[in-house]
Parts: sequence; structure tokens; C-alpha cells
Amino acid sequence: MSRLTRKSTKTAGSAPGTLIHVGEKKTDRVHLSMMHYAGAELIEQSLDGIETALPRLKPGATTWINIDGIHDVTLIEQIGRLFHIHPLTLEDILNTTMRPKDEAFDEYLFVVLKMVRYDATDCLITAEQISLILGENVLLSFQEAAGDVFEPVRERIRKGKGRIRTAGCDYLAYALLDAIVDHYYVILEKLGERLEALEESIDEDADAGMREEIHDIRRELIYLRKQVWPLREVVAHLLKGDNPFIGETTGMFLRDVYDHTIQAIDTIESFRDTLSSLQDLYLSTISNRMNEVMKVLTIIATIFIPISFIAGVYGMNFSHMPELGWRWGYLTVWLVIIAVVVAMLLFFKRKKWL
Amino acid sequence: MSRLTRKSTKTAGSAPGTLIHVGEKKTDRVHLSMMHYAGAELIEQSLDGIETALPRLKPGATTWINIDGIHDVTLIEQIGRLFHIHPLTLEDILNTTMRPKDEAFDEYLFVVLKMVRYDATDCLITAEQISLILGENVLLSFQEAAGDVFEPVRERIRKGKGRIRTAGCDYLAYALLDAIVDHYYVILEKLGERLEALEESIDEDADAGMREEIHDIRRELIYLRKQVWPLREVVAHLLKGDNPFIGETTGMFLRDVYDHTIQAIDTIESFRDTLSSLQDLYLSTISNRMNEVMKVLTIIATIFIPISFIAGVYGMNFSHMPELGWRWGYLTVWLVIIAVVVAMLLFFKRKKWL
Amino acid sequence: MSRLTRKSTKTAGSAPGTLIHVGEKKTDRVHLSMMHYAGAELIEQSLDGIETALPRLKPGATTWINIDGIHDVTLIEQIGRLFHIHPLTLEDILNTTMRPKDEAFDEYLFVVLKMVRYDATDCLITAEQISLILGENVLLSFQEAAGDVFEPVRERIRKGKGRIRTAGCDYLAYALLDAIVDHYYVILEKLGERLEALEESIDEDADAGMREEIHDIRRELIYLRKQVWPLREVVAHLLKGDNPFIGETTGMFLRDVYDHTIQAIDTIESFRDTLSSLQDLYLSTISNRMNEVMKVLTIIATIFIPISFIAGVYGMNFSHMPELGWRWGYLTVWLVIIAVVVAMLLFFKRKKWL
Amino acid sequence: MSRLTRKSTKTAGSAPGTLIHVGEKKTDRVHLSMMHYAGAELIEQSLDGIETALPRLKPGATTWINIDGIHDVTLIEQIGRLFHIHPLTLEDILNTTMRPKDEAFDEYLFVVLKMVRYDATDCLITAEQISLILGENVLLSFQEAAGDVFEPVRERIRKGKGRIRTAGCDYLAYALLDAIVDHYYVILEKLGERLEALEESIDEDADAGMREEIHDIRRELIYLRKQVWPLREVVAHLLKGDNPFIGETTGMFLRDVYDHTIQAIDTIESFRDTLSSLQDLYLSTISNRMNEVMKVLTIIATIFIPISFIAGVYGMNFSHMPELGWRWGYLTVWLVIIAVVVAMLLFFKRKKWL
Amino acid sequence: MSRLTRKSTKTAGSAPGTLIHVGEKKTDRVHLSMMHYAGAELIEQSLDGIETALPRLKPGATTWINIDGIHDVTLIEQIGRLFHIHPLTLEDILNTTMRPKDEAFDEYLFVVLKMVRYDATDCLITAEQISLILGENVLLSFQEAAGDVFEPVRERIRKGKGRIRTAGCDYLAYALLDAIVDHYYVILEKLGERLEALEESIDEDADAGMREEIHDIRRELIYLRKQVWPLREVVAHLLKGDNPFIGETTGMFLRDVYDHTIQAIDTIESFRDTLSSLQDLYLSTISNRMNEVMKVLTIIATIFIPISFIAGVYGMNFSHMPELGWRWGYLTVWLVIIAVVVAMLLFFKRKKWL
Repeated sequence: MSRLTRKSTKTAGSAPGTLIHVGEKKTDRVHLSMMHYAGAELIEQSLDGIETALPRLKPGATTWINIDGIHDVTLIEQIGRLFHIHPLTLEDILNTTMRPKDEAFDEYLFVVLKMVRYDATDCLITAEQISLILGENVLLSFQEAAGDVFEPVRERIRKGKGRIRTAGCDYLAYALLDAIVDHYYVILEKLGERLEALEESIDEDADAGMREEIHDIRRELIYLRKQVWPLREVVAHLLKGDNPFIGETTGMFLRDVYDHTIQAIDTIESFRDTLSSLQDLYLSTISNRMNEVMKVLTIIATIFIPISFIAGVYGMNFSHMPELGWRWGYLTVWLVIIAVVVAMLLFFKRKKWL
Repeated sequence: MSRLTRKSTKTAGSAPGTLIHVGEKKTDRVHLSMMHYAGAELIEQSLDGIETALPRLKPGATTWINIDGIHDVTLIEQIGRLFHIHPLTLEDILNTTMRPKDEAFDEYLFVVLKMVRYDATDCLITAEQISLILGENVLLSFQEAAGDVFEPVRERIRKGKGRIRTAGCDYLAYALLDAIVDHYYVILEKLGERLEALEESIDEDADAGMREEIHDIRRELIYLRKQVWPLREVVAHLLKGDNPFIGETTGMFLRDVYDHTIQAIDTIESFRDTLSSLQDLYLSTISNRMNEVMKVLTIIATIFIPISFIAGVYGMNFSHMPELGWRWGYLTVWLVIIAVVVAMLLFFKRKKWL
Repeated sequence: MSRLTRKSTKTAGSAPGTLIHVGEKKTDRVHLSMMHYAGAELIEQSLDGIETALPRLKPGATTWINIDGIHDVTLIEQIGRLFHIHPLTLEDILNTTMRPKDEAFDEYLFVVLKMVRYDATDCLITAEQISLILGENVLLSFQEAAGDVFEPVRERIRKGKGRIRTAGCDYLAYALLDAIVDHYYVILEKLGERLEALEESIDEDADAGMREEIHDIRRELIYLRKQVWPLREVVAHLLKGDNPFIGETTGMFLRDVYDHTIQAIDTIESFRDTLSSLQDLYLSTISNRMNEVMKVLTIIATIFIPISFIAGVYGMNFSHMPELGWRWGYLTVWLVIIAVVVAMLLFFKRKKWL
Repeated sequence: MSRLTRKSTKTAGSAPGTLIHVGEKKTDRVHLSMMHYAGAELIEQSLDGIETALPRLKPGATTWINIDGIHDVTLIEQIGRLFHIHPLTLEDILNTTMRPKDEAFDEYLFVVLKMVRYDATDCLITAEQISLILGENVLLSFQEAAGDVFEPVRERIRKGKGRIRTAGCDYLAYALLDAIVDHYYVILEKLGERLEALEESIDEDADAGMREEIHDIRRELIYLRKQVWPLREVVAHLLKGDNPFIGETTGMFLRDVYDHTIQAIDTIESFRDTLSSLQDLYLSTISNRMNEVMKVLTIIATIFIPISFIAGVYGMNFSHMPELGWRWGYLTVWLVIIAVVVAMLLFFKRKKWL
Repeated sequence: MSRLTRKSTKTAGSAPGTLIHVGEKKTDRVHLSMMHYAGAELIEQSLDGIETALPRLKPGATTWINIDGIHDVTLIEQIGRLFHIHPLTLEDILNTTMRPKDEAFDEYLFVVLKMVRYDATDCLITAEQISLILGENVLLSFQEAAGDVFEPVRERIRKGKGRIRTAGCDYLAYALLDAIVDHYYVILEKLGERLEALEESIDEDADAGMREEIHDIRRELIYLRKQVWPLREVVAHLLKGDNPFIGETTGMFLRDVYDHTIQAIDTIESFRDTLSSLQDLYLSTISNRMNEVMKVLTIIATIFIPISFIAGVYGMNFSHMPELGWRWGYLTVWLVIIAVVVAMLLFFKRKKWL
């Protein structure tokens, strides 16, 4: 399926709230894992079924259930039933083509995000949808496939570094959000490196590959921009929204995420500007080079075509060509030829072509 | 009539509220059909006249009357009389060149939409105007011609899938709106495919057809954009507006439609960006190719023009040309020629033209 | 005077409220006409002097006085005195370079508009300033010259079609506004036709006239845009403004005018986009054609220059040129020439130039 | 000093409120003049020192003191002391690089403006800073040098034309503002004339001077725009601001200045659009011309290179060239040459190059 | 590390509030200095440790502690403890990749700024992060390295010039802010000079270096813009924000800084416009020059190719070429050649190529 339009046509017209998985099936096995902690206490385990996690939930402790793989509609339905999730939310979780958004419900806060990856071999950015359900003392995270950018967060929970073990569920949600936004910078740095490589090589050698590299970077920026822009609204909304799921302390940290998001957008915009400047530089380099090619051709042709004509004239076989018989005829012709060449060179000199 | 400006001049200056059909007559026969349902009860039938539907209307049941073909002014007037529709609304229904909008009246909510189609043979998007009149327990939909994107909705009503049979008239209006917006994605996917086909082929072979394809896609995007942009305001307005015709539950579903509309706009904008990048790529490919052509010409001409001159010199017929009589004259000339060629090749090498 | 800047320098520095006619004198004779109606009653006549109309004014009846030609400062002053018009308003009426605006005074509402015309011979849009003074039961309209787009309105008054005879003075003002905005579509349709003609012909034959046509249409769009944009604010302001001169019923009709103005702006913007796409198409067509010309030159030159050199070599007159004496020398040369030509053709084939 | 950045580096880091003259010293002698009037009474005189004006100030009369030349820091300090002007205001008056702004203090209203001039010889727009201090019955105006656009205002005061003699100090300030904004139109008209001259000449003859003219006009527009844009905010602020220095009547006149400012901005923007369209037209004209040049070259070269080759072949000196001995050999060669030429011409005809 | 993306990946995923220095280590030794003053009293000294400054802090006096070098995490932590600074603030101070921002805490106001420098050798702008902590009677400033733009401020404190000695801590913060913003103008002036140098040289000689200069200036503008834009929000926020750390008097001075920031942004935008105009001028200069080159080539080739053909014809060695034997054959050929040349020259004259 194309990266440009991922909204599949197969849901068009189906009843809202109908649970259909939309998107590529990126993993075969659905994998559930749980981290449960409260101060010094920490339980980390894989889950066979979602119902085994339920007894853990209690006030004062934080339970993070991560689901890798969202194509198993039955499982999602079961989770929906157990955690009282609205059918529309379940539909959104299954639909991997959602625009980043946040929605506050009575019993939970629902956030859809895009986690971006950089595929080094193809130089392609890919986005994976992350859905977060933030309840009172439980956080559900849904991923399209295994593998994420949350490892440092898990590490912090395991080691009890910082305030994460004591700071509750909203802080955990913040930490995940922060990890995702931080990862945008990894991507931006990669693109920044490609931009700088381009900028350096364009001076020496503007070859054909360059114009494709310019187009490729631009395409990636367009793609990244589409993922990051809506995030600004989402974080701003979380900041302002008087929902009971985000405490005041976490709100202050969210302000930091907001700053980072704005800065990521700033960087994308200045990359676009830089790219557009490079495009102009590339085009004028091409034009310039063409000019140079043309000059060489013109100089050579303009010098030799007239003197070839002179040689041609005295190659004619007329019976009566008095010059041919002259003693110094041949020498004179050479002098004329040299005069023409010198005149031409002076002309080019004056035109600053040499 | 042109797709660019459809506001016909024939109404210019006519009295407002005058019922005149504006637009192409896309169908010959006007066709009326009704779906009437309330829970398990379902009546679906064609109507001979609009008055036969009236007795069906009652609280608790939903009646959807669909009119295919709006050129029959008398019929529209009759419907207006029977359902107490304002003359200005009737005028808007008849005028197929309306901008999408919504207007709340005391007795009904009036929404004008554009349903888009993709004509696969011409690769042209066409828009058909849909007018919805949402009353208390009746929904009137006016189409320019038979054939629409509502079949899945009808199917859901027939099979009683989801909440549609029980959810009232506003939910039905939402379902139609949703079907229309979903269909925008079908169009976008088609355009996305054309964009990607373009992107792939541009590397191999930037031929003349490509520049027309770029222009064609851009033209379609401009057209689609003009249809979709106003829709955002319409849906946002329906969401915010405190009109009594849209219940709170349906409002939540409308938020979904709003998200989809925003996403469609996002996609159109990134298509435009992509297209503009492709246009740049195409132009620099053309420039590059010209450069290559010029180089070949310059190399050939620059090598052969000087040595042709040498040959020309010794083709002259002067009586006194000492070189002609020399023993190794001919060989020397060949050596000179080879030297010139080698010098030229080295020059091109240094210029990186070879 | 130039169409680009019409604010004449002659008023610069004159006292505000000084009555000076600014603009071209488009008519010699000032012509006053009146339509007076109240239900079935209708009087339509030319006026010799403005004072003859005064006795007609009475509550319940609508009097429309139209003045064609505004260069007669004395007359404007007299009208100002009789109808208690503020000197600044009079100055604005006389100044044909005003930006569209509306101003509410205690005794009247003042609206300045631009009525556009399409001059078919020059393909130029021209704008004429219309000033409306809407009092309690009188409407004054000032035009630069005779000839307007109000004929259908007059016809409706004469025939008593629609609600115009009974709907009061504000409705009449609306009707005039509507007639002006409707006429923008006539212009847009003309431009749309030129755009489509351009689009069709660009494929076949991108000649020099096309680039002027592109520029001309763009110039007209810039001009039209400058007239239409401010109108949006004016109509929006009339809609919102709590002035006593516009009744609620007429307000609803004004909403229609607002929709049309927005749609006109939309259309102008998409015309601009289309034009910009056509400009790109035109430029790449030119580039492409240049490429083709260059290819033909390069193919011919690259094939014949080397073989001409060969012929040149054997045209030399050295005494000792062994090949010249060979039995199959001439034939061999021909074979070499054919080999070169075939090699070149294969080279071009591989380059896809043939 | 450059017109692009006039903020001098010499103030960087100096204490705020420090009085330093920043800018070019445009005049040697500082000149003070006063106009004092109240109804029929009028005193106009040059002042030797600012203190001589003080006794004139009284309620009911208006005193306008104009200072030409602001490099005399001591004088400015003295004025500041006498009229209770804030040190920051004095600093702003001395700094000729201010952005247009207005600031309300307790005892006066401070407005900074840019008066533009058009230097006809260089075709350059220059801006001079005007600072106005509007007190209760005194107006101070500071100019960089003698010579301004206020002469018509002075004339109106002298002749007592209009309401100026009786309308108080705020009206005088308005009159000066109006004179400055009116003068923008003089500049715009000059630029408009250059644009139209450009537009006309581009069709006939797109020479090198044209591209510099395009750049020059654009540079002037950028400069003018930078002066005019901030003015909009200033006037809008004066209109809204509840400061006691501007009476209600003058407010109404200011609305007129606001309209003019908006219109000036509109005109600048449409000039930019027009210029950009002309730039495109110029570029495609250049491209087109290049195309034509190339065609001529290609036609000539493509016709003569092949037939020159034929002539070259029969110029070879092989002993065994049977054609050379044929009776009709020469004639045949001519026929072949003619055939080639005709074939080529037909080819060009088909390509529509002829 | 690249100047384009400075947000280091090494913090990605680390716990918020974790103190890690992010950025280049620009200095080896951390240097602390203090200025303490209150009216006539002034103590200026280097500090060995931050704790030695603490006893100085007292109401009525202002203590400015400047820290050059922020890579010493232990020191920053100690300062944080001593001055009750929030961990998130400390993290921001250590992270040199912050976007300019201001945050009000209960005990202090935190402002992050970018101080720009112009490296004359590389013509590169570099930014250094300045963090200000404004407490009740203490101001902490953190710099990445020694060397700043605050020397004039220090000089004013030392000499007691202006109001700085008596005006409190907020005024000092304002003075630093003002010094930073003033320094933007130094940079802008440098760029302005480069722009003008470019503009002058483009007329004479559009060489390859120019297109790199255009790109370089644009890159610097993009970089500078990214630093200055967020500053506007920061200053606007400081102006509006009801925080207790900025007194009303200082607020008035801040308005001045705000004006300067806006003006800097204005200047950057008009530089961008100017640059874009120069880019267009450069491109059309290149195009024009190519055109001229082509014309010379075409004129020479078009004149000589046909006459060379004529010479070639009479160089053929046919036995029966009657012209060769004619008495005036040679002369006739010369006349034909001259006729062809004259005809060509007239053709070029008519085409305005000569």
C-alpha cells in the first residue's frame, strides 16, 4: 500500500463503530506485556491474555499494558469490554490511518500518535501508529508491531531512575509522548546530515543523483511534516484541556514536550527553506554549466569555421585562380588565418568568455 | 459547460427565491424513493409522487426520501410546500453551483454538499451536488442524477447492522455525510497512485507526457480542494452549532467526520507539495538532459572542427606549398591530428565531461 | 489614466471634505432618474433636478434615485444638502478611486462598490464605482456613467415580480448588491473560458502568443481580485452590523450575497492556481521543444562532422599519400564512413534520442 | 550608509534614554518654525529658540512647532525639558531608524512616521522620519531635514480653508498624517507608470535592461512595503485607542486615513503580483527567443552539413573514383544535393519549424 | 556537530530533569564573575565558588552573577540547590539546543535567549545560548563560553551611567536583553552589506561565485530567522505576563525591545524578498548570457556554413565541371559568396540579433 494515502477504501461506507483492522498487518503474533509498579514494587511480565492483568489494577499503583499488534479484532473487542472503551475509540485504534488527535472521554483519555522510524537502507521514514488509553491507574498502549522507542522509559522504570516510579500514570503517558517526540529529532538529524552532505557536494559536482536526492529529502520532509504538525494541536490541547487524567505536575512536563514539538516544526520549516535554496543553487549550477559548455563550443566553432572556409576557397579547382600561382600566396593565407584567429580571441576576451 | 465556472449567467439578476434550475440536466426522469424504518420495521419503495410519503412520517420513525434529478421545478415547489421549506432553500437546491454550506432554519437544517466521482476513462473528477434537508423525523436528499455513494448506508439499513435502525434521523444524515467524505479518500487514493506512478517513471524516462500528467493531476487537486475546503467549515459549524436537529450522540460521530475532512485536506496539501517537488524534479531532469545533449554535440564538434581545418589547409591548391612535397608530410599531418584529438580529450576529461 | 493606480495625485494634500471629482469623466451629461413604488403604485421618470423628487418621499413607499455621472460637484453638493449627507461621504462619492467599504451614519448607510465590466474587444476588465446611500425610505445610487447591470432589477420592479415591490428600501439595496455580485460571475466565466481555451491549445502548439495570454489573464485576475476581496468584508460587515437600515428579512438574503462573494473569491483563487500550473506547463513545453531542436542538430552534426573530416583527409594534396593510389581505397573510405554512421546511430539509439 | 539596514551599530549597548543622534545628518542648520492660530488669528514665524514659542501656548489656540533637523542633541534635550517629554521618546526622536509606531503617554501622544520621497534621477524611494508629539494645544513635528509634504496643509491654515483653523490640534495632526499617506500614492503612481512602461515594452523587446528594471521596481516595492505595513497598525491603534488627545470628530477623519493606508497596501501587493507575472513573462520571452535562435542554427546547419559532406567526398583525390569520370556525375551530385535540401525542408515543415 | 540540528540524540529518552550537558563544550574552564551594586556602591569580582556570592544578596541591592561555561553539571546542580531552581530549569540551562522561551516560576523568572555572533572569516553566524534567571534581587546569567555582547552594560554599571545603578534587577535583565537584540542589528548590517555588494556586482559580472553567495546569505538568513522569530513571542509574553519580577518602569523599556525585535524580523523578511529578487535577476542574467553566446555561434555558423559549401562544391574533382573552366568562374563564386553573406547579415538585422 502506498505511503501517500493510507486511508483504505475498504472501510468506506461501513458502519461507524464497526471494528475492522485498517492498515498493513505488520506482525503475525500479537504480544501483550505488562509493567506494574508502585514505588519500590515492580512487576514486569508478558501476558497470555488481557484478563490476567486486571487483578493488578489498584489505586496508587501504575499498570502499563502494551499491546504489540492490533490486527486481532477479537482481542481489541475484549479489551474494550474489560476497560469500558467506547466503540468509536476501538475503531480508531484499529484504524492505523488516523491523524494524531486526543479525545477526552468520561473514563479515559485517548491519544493517537505517530512514532516515526528511519529505514537506513531505503532512506525512508515510516510511521507507526501508537494509541494511548490513559485511565485512572492504567495506561494501555497499542502498537502496530513489536519494536518501539520506549526502551529508555522501560529502563528508567526498571532502575527506578528519576521520578517515574512514584509519579503516577499521567507521568508515564508523558514519558512515552516525550520519547516519541525526542525520536523525531533523531530523524531530523539524519535528514540534516543528508542536507549538509548535499550542500557540500553541490559545489564540487552537481550531478544527476543530486536532483533525486533533493526530491527524496523533500518527499521525506513532506511526510514528516504531515505527522508532526497535528501533534502540536494535540499537545497544546492536552496542556489546556481541563481533563482529570493529567495532573498539574505532569502538565509542567508536557509544556516541555510542547516546546520540543514546536522546535521540531521550526526545524522542518527551516529544512524546507534550505532545501528550496539548494534546489535554486542546483538549478543555477546546471544553467551555469550549460553556459560553459556552450561557450567552449562557440569559441571553437567560431574560430575554426571562418578559417576552414578560407582553406575551402583555395581548395577550389577553378582554372583561373590567380592567388594559387602567387609566390607568397600560401604564406599570405596563413597570415590571414592567424589574423582571423587573433581577432576572434580578442573578441572573446572583450566578451569575458576567456 | 465548463467545470471551472459553473455559476450560470442565466440567473444573474433574477429575483431571489425565483425557482430556476441551474446546471446541467444530468438525468431525464426524476426518481423518488423512500426508506422508512423504526427499529425492526422497514419499508423501502419507489414513490410515484411525493405526497404518498407524507402519511408515513411520524415521531419515533425515520423516513428518508431521496430525489434523483432536480430539474423538475414543479416537483421541487410541491416538496417545498409540503415540508414548509423556505423559498431561498429551494432556490439553493435547484442551483447545482452552490458552495458547500449549512443553514439552520426553524423547522429544518439545510446542508449542501459535493459528492465527488472519479471518471476512470478521462481521469477526471466530477462533483455532484447533494442537498440534505434534515427535519424532525424526515430526511430529504436531493441528487442531480441517479447513482450515488450511499449504497453501503442503504445496505446497513436493510440488514439492520450497527445502530442505524434505532439512532434516528440525525444519525442517518451523519451516515450520508460520512459516506461522502469517505469517498473523497477513494479519489485521493487514485490520485496518490497516479502521483507514485509519476514519481517512479520520472527517474527512467522524463518524456513529454509527464508534464501533461503533472498538470492534469494538479488541475484535479485544485478542483478537489475547492470542493473539500468549504466542507471543513460546514462540519465544524454542525459540530458547534446548537441546533436542535443534531443530538449529542450523533455530534460525537460528527467529530469523526471532522477528523476525516481535516485529514483529507492535509492529504491534498501534501499532494500539492509532492507535485511541486515532482515538477522541480522534472524540470531539472529536462535541463540535465539538455546539458547532456549539448555536451555530446560540443565534444564531437570541438574535436573534429579543428582537425577538419587541418585537412582543409592541405587540400588547398597553391603552387608553392612546400609541405605537400615533403616525404613525411602526410604522416606528420596525421600525427598533428592525433595530438589535437588527444589534447581535446584530456581537456574534456579535466572538465569532467567524459 | 492608468488602471493600476487610480488614486489621483491632484487631491493629495487638499482639505478633507473638499468636494473634488477624482477620476475620469466618463459621461458628459449627468442624468437623474427615479423609480418610486409602494405595492401596486409605480412611478418611473427622468428627473430634471433632484428637488423634484423630494415630495415623493414618504414612509411606506420606496424611492430609488439613480444618478449617472458624478463629475458635477454642484449637483452632488445640492444632493448632500437636501439629504443631510456628511461632507466626507460626499467626498467619497466624488472620488472614484475608493476601496469598497461600508459606513453607517446616523441618518443613512453608505456603501461603496465596484461594478465590473468586461470589454470584449480589448479583453480588459474595467471597474466602475457605485455608491449607495440607503436612507429610511430612499435609496440613492451614484454611477460614474450611464449603463449598468441593474436592468433586471428595474424589470422586476416594473413587472412587480417577486417580493421587490413590497419589501422596502433595504431589499432594493440588496437587489442591487446581488446584481453586482452576480455580474462578477459573468466576468469569471469569460476568464474561465479563456483559461480553458489556453489549456486546450497548449498541448498542440505552445507559441509566443500563449505566454502573453497567460500574462494577460493573470493581470485581469489580479485586477478582479483587488475589486472583490474588500467586498467580502463589506458584506460580512453589513450582515453583522446592527444598523437600523437593514431589516432581518433582508439580512437573510444578504447571507446569500455573502456566499456568492466567497465563492467568487474561491473561484479567483483556483483560477490563479490553474494559471500557475499552466505557466509551468508552458515553460516545460518550451524546454522540451528546445531539447528536441537540440537533439536534431546534435544528431545531424555528430554524424556528418566526423565523416566530413574523413572526406577532407583524402582531399589533401600531399605527393605521398599511399591510400590514394590503392585499388580499393575509395571503396574502403565509403565502408569506413558507413561504419561511423552506423556506430553513431547505435549510440543515439542507446541514448534514446531516436 | 545602506538603505537596507539603517539601525546603526553605534547605539548598540548604550544606555536606553541616552540621547544620541542615529542616522545621516541631512541638514546643517536646525530650523524652527511656528504656526499659531485660533479661528481668525494666525501667526506664522521662524523661531530663534524654542523658548520664544512657549508664551503662545494657550487653551483654545493651536500651536504647531516644526523642527527641521534633529542632530542637535542639546536642542532636543531642551525641548524635552520644556514640554515634559519622556527620555525614551526623545531617544526615539533622535533615532531615525525607528519603525513607525504610536505610544500614548500621560501628557502627550507620540507618533513616528516615515515620509517617502521619490528621487526622479536615481528612481529611488527615500524615507525621512517624522516624529509627532501631540499635546493638548501644541503639536511638535520633528523632521530630519527641511522640505516636506506639508505645504498644502500650511496653505490651508494660511487661507483658513476648510475646518482646519477651528478644529484643534488633533485635526492638525490628522492633516499631517493624511498628507503623508496621500504622498504614498504619488510614489505608487510613479511605480505604476514604470510597471506599465515595462509591460508595454516587454512585448516588443525583452532586452537586458528590462531584467534590471524588474529587479529595481521590486526592490523599491520591498522598501516601500516595509515603510507602509507598520503604518496600518499605527493608524488602527490611533483609531481604537481611548487616548484623550484625539477627539471623536477627528477619529472619523482618521478612519479615512486608515482606508487609504489599506488601499496603499492593497496596491503594493497587486504591484508585487503584477511584477511577478512580468518576471515570468520576461523569462518565457527569453526562453522563446533562445528557441528561435536555436531553430535558425539548426535549420541552416542541418541543411548544409550533409550536402557539404557530399561535396567533400568528390573532393577526394583517389586515383580510382569512377563517379568523377562519369559524363553526368557533376549534374547527378547537384540533383542529390537538391533532393537532400528538399527532404530537409519538408522535415522542418512537418516539425512546424518553418 | 551540524548547525542545522543541534538537538542531540543522546538525551532522547533520558528522564526529564536529568542533568546532562547537551551541546559542544565551548570552553575548558568555567568562570564565575559577580557584579554587586546599589546606588553608589559597586563590587565587581571573579568568584572562586558560587557560595561566596550568597552573603551579598540583600534587598535594595542588585547582584549579577555571570557563569561562563555550562558543561560542569556539578556546579549547575549546586547553583540549583542554593537558589531553589526547578530541575526542569536546570535541564534547560544545560541543554544548549533550547528554543528561546520564558517561563515564570514562583521564585524566579527564567528566560532562554540566543546571542548571535558573526564569524568574519567563514561569514557564518553562530548562536550561543544565554539563560537568565531573574530572582528578586539577583540575576544569574549562564553562557556557553566566555566572551559576550554585555561589555557596554558592564561599562554603564561601572561608570554609573544612566539609571542602571538604581533601577533594580529587572532593569539589568532588560539591559542584557536589549544588548542581545541590538547585536542582531550588527549581524543584519553585515548581511545587508553582503546583499548590496552582491546587488552591485550582479550587473557587471554574474559569475559562478555569485550563486554560492546567494545561497550562503540565504542560509544565514534562515538560521538567523530561526533564532529571532521565537524571541518575539518571548518579549511579547514578558510584556503581557503579570509576573512580579518585572516592574512597570522596566515594562516600558521592554516595549522598546519588542519594537526592535519586530523591526529585526521585518528586516530579515525584506532581506529574504531582496534575495529572492536577486536570485531571479541572477537567473535571468544567466539566461540572457546564454542567449548571447548562442547568437554569436548562430551568426558565425549560419554565415560560414553555406559559403563553405559553395567552396566545397568547386573543390570537387569531377572531370566535367564546366564552371571550373569559365573565365570569370572564380570571380562569380566570390560574388555569390558575398551575396550570401550580405543576405544573412540583413536577415540577422531584421531579427535584431545584430
